[in-house]
Amino acid sequence: MRYELYYWPTIQGRGEYVRLALEEAGADYVDAARQESGMAAMMRMMEAKNGTPPFAPPFLKAGKLVIGQTANILLYLGSRHSLSPKGEAASLWVHQLQLTVTDFVVEIHDTHHPLGSSLYYEDQRSEAKKRTNEFWKERVPKFLGYFEALLETSGGAFITGRRLTHVDLSLFQIVEGFRYAFPKRMKAFEHKIPRLVDLHDRVASRPNIKAYLSSERRIAFNEDGIFRHYKELDF
Amino acid sequence: MRYELYYWPTIQGRGEYVRLALEEAGADYVDAARQESGMAAMMRMMEAKNGTPPFAPPFLKAGKLVIGQTANILLYLGSRHSLSPKGEAASLWVHQLQLTVTDFVVEIHDTHHPLGSSLYYEDQRSEAKKRTNEFWKERVPKFLGYFEALLETSGGAFITGRRLTHVDLSLFQIVEGFRYAFPKRMKAFEHKIPRLVDLHDRVASRPNIKAYLSSERRIAFNEDGIFRHYKELDF
Repeated sequence: MRYELYYWPTIQGRGEYVRLALEEAGADYVDAARQESGMAAMMRMMEAKNGTPPFAPPFLKAGKLVIGQTANILLYLGSRHSLSPKGEAASLWVHQLQLTVTDFVVEIHDTHHPLGSSLYYEDQRSEAKKRTNEFWKERVPKFLGYFEALLETSGGAFITGRRLTHVDLSLFQIVEGFRYAFPKRMKAFEHKIPRLVDLHDRVASRPNIKAYLSSERRIAFNEDGIFRHYKELDF
Repeated sequence: MRYELYYWPTIQGRGEYVRLALEEAGADYVDAARQESGMAAMMRMMEAKNGTPPFAPPFLKAGKLVIGQTANILLYLGSRHSLSPKGEAASLWVHQLQLTVTDFVVEIHDTHHPLGSSLYYEDQRSEAKKRTNEFWKERVPKFLGYFEALLETSGGAFITGRRLTHVDLSLFQIVEGFRYAFPKRMKAFEHKIPRLVDLHDRVASRPNIKAYLSSERRIAFNEDGIFRHYKELDF
């Protein structure tokens, strides 16, 4: 079965967490909205009057299933491609961590759009500065400190122990994204999260991820995505 | 087994989606942080150096399990208390909808805290007005319109058909919360979501929910929670 991933074709965004999982797994998939007529197909599926129409991308077509919500897609893929542990307790824990990443991603996005996503960044620049300052002062230390502490006690190289999960892939993306969006702030902060930086490097050097990152399938960071580099927000 | 729910003791907040599920199910539970020494116990569990320390409340202690993230708790409770369907496809769909509610709840919260949750509302009042206007113009019609459309085609009285799920309970809470926080805006809007209003009434009249809502276990809405009534945001 070839998976079809549907996501905005010009950004990493939330789709990237799914792409990283599919790539690490070596899964057969097509990034559907990047194909001809793909965007039209994506919009049709969201407007479907029956079945399970998703509220928003990303969503994954897996045979007859259409699965929306990033963490839900990873819940599905994780169990099929050894990217999450078996057993209810461990599975709930990994999903819980992925949902915590999800919460963090919302806050990362809102640094540049505190007044709402339908308004231009240029029309909320001063509010974005305030939100970004609060974010780096309060939220980044709290979220990354949480994951750093988990790595310290995990008993292995990965967030839940000796085996890689989709959460590790997502944490790679967070570090990578911060380095792009906030190079100065991140440079000053990284000494507080040595284990996360190591994890980032370990994920980046995995053969499938390494091949993906240097391929055209990996869309470059840009100022339409979640991680945006605006000089005035980084100092 | 008696569940222990851990959540901030003076607000409905995100804990309310779990409380409603526990109450509908008639489950044996204690609202732990509202008991003597409960808050201290909650903080200790979040700071635990091993096990599965949650990033934030709510979390549920179920025997040896400690489960965090609202939607994850409902995933667990749903399968045990007939508040979600069996079968992978239906289960993923219900979880996906709960995660969409989760996204909406973040945006509801951010109407009064667009610059960040560590700052006082009073220090972001003008930004809150802008965000609230954008929210009611763009986001409420999109989110509630989505759920209204699903109710129209569900083939039953509930969001996924003939059987109630935890998503229905959460949608009740959304309607109830909007009526509290934005009575004027909601009064003008409700004619667009007749099926959601019906669903709200149907949930409210279920015996266990009705008993709960009139009990002292239901904390009243207040201005420390997600749904806050500020006159200047409602017109």
